[in-house]
Amino acid sequence: MENFTAYNPTTLHFGKDVLRALGPTINRFGKKVLLVYGQGSIKKSGLYDEIMTYLNAIGAEVSEYGGIRSNPVIEDVDAAAAIGREKSVDVILAVGGGSVIDSAKVIAAAIPADVPAWNFFVRRAMIRCAVPVVAVLTLAATGSEMNQFAVVSNHEAEVKNSIGSPLLFPKHSFLDPQLTVTVPRNYTAYGITDIIAHALEAYFGKGEEATLTDRFVFDIIKEVMEYGPQLLDDLTNYELRAKIMFAATMALNGMTMYGRASGEWGVHSIGHILSLLYDVPHGASLSIVYPAWLKLQKERLPERISQLGRNIFGTGDVDKTITMFEEFFRRIGSPVRISEAVGEKADPDEIFRVMGSNKAATYVHKLDQDDYREIIRLMM
Amino acid sequence: MENFTAYNPTTLHFGKDVLRALGPTINRFGKKVLLVYGQGSIKKSGLYDEIMTYLNAIGAEVSEYGGIRSNPVIEDVDAAAAIGREKSVDVILAVGGGSVIDSAKVIAAAIPADVPAWNFFVRRAMIRCAVPVVAVLTLAATGSEMNQFAVVSNHEAEVKNSIGSPLLFPKHSFLDPQLTVTVPRNYTAYGITDIIAHALEAYFGKGEEATLTDRFVFDIIKEVMEYGPQLLDDLTNYELRAKIMFAATMALNGMTMYGRASGEWGVHSIGHILSLLYDVPHGASLSIVYPAWLKLQKERLPERISQLGRNIFGTGDVDKTITMFEEFFRRIGSPVRISEAVGEKADPDEIFRVMGSNKAATYVHKLDQDDYREIIRLMM
Repeated sequence: MENFTAYNPTTLHFGKDVLRALGPTINRFGKKVLLVYGQGSIKKSGLYDEIMTYLNAIGAEVSEYGGIRSNPVIEDVDAAAAIGREKSVDVILAVGGGSVIDSAKVIAAAIPADVPAWNFFVRRAMIRCAVPVVAVLTLAATGSEMNQFAVVSNHEAEVKNSIGSPLLFPKHSFLDPQLTVTVPRNYTAYGITDIIAHALEAYFGKGEEATLTDRFVFDIIKEVMEYGPQLLDDLTNYELRAKIMFAATMALNGMTMYGRASGEWGVHSIGHILSLLYDVPHGASLSIVYPAWLKLQKERLPERISQLGRNIFGTGDVDKTITMFEEFFRRIGSPVRISEAVGEKADPDEIFRVMGSNKAATYVHKLDQDDYREIIRLMM
Repeated sequence: MENFTAYNPTTLHFGKDVLRALGPTINRFGKKVLLVYGQGSIKKSGLYDEIMTYLNAIGAEVSEYGGIRSNPVIEDVDAAAAIGREKSVDVILAVGGGSVIDSAKVIAAAIPADVPAWNFFVRRAMIRCAVPVVAVLTLAATGSEMNQFAVVSNHEAEVKNSIGSPLLFPKHSFLDPQLTVTVPRNYTAYGITDIIAHALEAYFGKGEEATLTDRFVFDIIKEVMEYGPQLLDDLTNYELRAKIMFAATMALNGMTMYGRASGEWGVHSIGHILSLLYDVPHGASLSIVYPAWLKLQKERLPERISQLGRNIFGTGDVDKTITMFEEFFRRIGSPVRISEAVGEKADPDEIFRVMGSNKAATYVHKLDQDDYREIIRLMM
C-alpha cells in the first residue's frame, strides 16, 4: 500500500426530510447567506420556496446568484463572488448538483482572496481561506458534496480544469433522495456513468496494492450496475434513488483513494474537453471516453483490466470486460461515441488541438500524441 | 436505507515513517503534552525514545502516564486526568492500542470537566469539551484511532461500558504498520477477530436496506479472512500488516454504519463481561461470543445470516456459515469457547448474574433471561 492521508470533515445529513435541520445549521455560520443555484429547476420544483422558508425562519439576509450552467463557467463564479464580497456573506448555500456545488466552492475561495477566480486554477493565487459552504444536493453524480474538488470551465482559455483544497470541503451537505426523483432519465443515467468513472479513475491510479480499497471500488460499481438500471425503469423509487445517491458520494469522498498515491484522471481530462467544446454533459463525456481509454490501455494494463473484469463481470477476459462496460453504458442510454452525443459536429482535429493545450497526458498512465489520435479515433 | 449522519473529522496519517510529521502536528495544539501509554512495550521497542525525540525537537513540556492495562480501568483514567489538569496540558498524545486511545479520550473529557470520569458513563456528566487527542497506533484492532468511542471497565461497579461523543474523535492519528510488526501472534489474531466482530455488529444492526454498506462489510471480512492467516504465518511482513491495520480502521470509522439507524453491539456487550470477570482479551472474547450469538439467532435471522454466508463463504446455509466462522476463529487461534481462554475458572452463574446487571439485552435483537442462559451454555 502507498502512504496516504485520510481527511474529510464534511458532515453529511442523508435521508428523508433531512432539510428540516438546514436553518439551524446555516445559523451556526451567520445570517448573511449567499444562495447559489442553477438554471431554475429548483424554482419549478418548489425547493427554492422551501429553502427560503427555512432561511426566513432564522432571519437570514439572503443574497442570491442563480443561473449556474451544468458545465459551470468561470464568469459566473466571478460574478457571484462579487456579490458575496459586496454583501460580506457569512456562508454560501449551494443548492443543486455538482456544477452548483463546485461553483460555490470556488466562489467561497474567491470572495476573501478578491482576485479573479481563474487565478486559483493557473496557480497565480493560493487558496488561503474560504467562506463556509453548505450544500443541498439535487443530483446524484459528482460527489462534490463530500470532497474538496471543484471543476470549472474557462472558454476563453479553452480549458476545463479542477482545483482542490482542504478548505473547500462543504461544512455540511444535505442529501435527501426525494430531491432527486425529478431528475430526468438521461441525467440520471449520466450520473450513474459518472459514479462508475470516478471509481475507475481511482482504480487505475497509483497504488495497486490497496486490495481492500479495490474491493470498495468493485462494490461501488456493482451496486450502481445492479440498481442503476432498476432506477431508470422506476425513476420515482425512493430506495433506488437513495442507493444511487449514496454510491455517488462514496465514489469520490476519498475512500477509493486510501492506500493510493494518486488517481488516474486522464479520462476525466479528455471528457472535460468534450464538455468544453460541445457542451457534452459531464457523465455522458465519460461513457464516451472510458471505453476508448480502456481499449488504448488494454495491452499496457492487461492484469489490472482483467482483475476488474473478474470482479465486476465474472470474466478475466480484457476485451470482453471492455465490451461489457460499453454495453452497460449503451443499455442505460449513456453515449459511447461522440456522434451519439453531438451528431456530426465533433471535429477530430479540433479535439486533438485542445487536448494538447490541456496537457491531457500528465497522468499516471501517460499518453503521447499518437495516443491522443488513437483515443479520438476510438471515440468517433 | 435508514437516515444517517456521516461525520468523521480525524486526520489519518497512514504508512511508512508517517511519525516524522508528529512533532509539527503536536505543536499546532500547544507545548504542554500529556503522553499516555500502556505497560511498557513502547519502551522496549524504542518507540518511546523516538517519540520523545520528536517532542523534544518542538520544545514540548511532557507529562506522562504509563501503565494503561489492555482492558483499561477507570482508576487509571482518573489518575491521568488529575495529572493533565494539574499541568494544564494542551494536548494528549496516546501511544498504544485501543485501550490506550480509549483511555486518552476519556481523560481528554475528564480534564476540563473536573469530575470522576465514570460520571460520563452513567450519564451523571455530559461531555461538553475535551482536550485534543493525537494518537499513535501500535496495534490493529479496535478502530479507536478514527472514531468517537471509548470503552473502559469499572470493576467496583462490575461494568465494562462505552461512551461516545463527536468531541472524542482523535484530531490526528498516525498509523505506521511498521509499529505493529512486534505484536505477538495471539494478539494479532485477536485483532483480526475484533475487526470481523465490528463488521458483524454493524451488519446485524438496524438498516438491512443499506446494500452498498453491506458490501463494504463483506469486503472488510473477506479482506481479513484472506490476508489475516497469511500475516499470522509472516508476522513481520509490512504489506500484510498494512492491510490488516487499514481494515481495522475501516471496520469502525463509521462507514459500516452508513444507511443504518444503529449497530447491534449485543455481542460486544457480552464479550465485555468476559473481559471484566476473567480478563479475557477483547478480541478473544468476541470469537467466543459471536458463534454462540449466531447460533441463538439462527432461526430468528435466517435470511440475514444466509446472505452473510453467501457473500463470505459462498454458501447460503445458515449452520454451515456459523461453523465456518467458528472454524476460521479456531484456525487463527482465537478461542471459540470460554474454557479455551480461561480454563475451568469460568462460572456460568457468575456470568449470568453480571449479564443481568449490564443489561445485555438492550440491543437491536433483544435477549431475554432464557437467551442469556442459552448463550452462556453455547459459550462453555
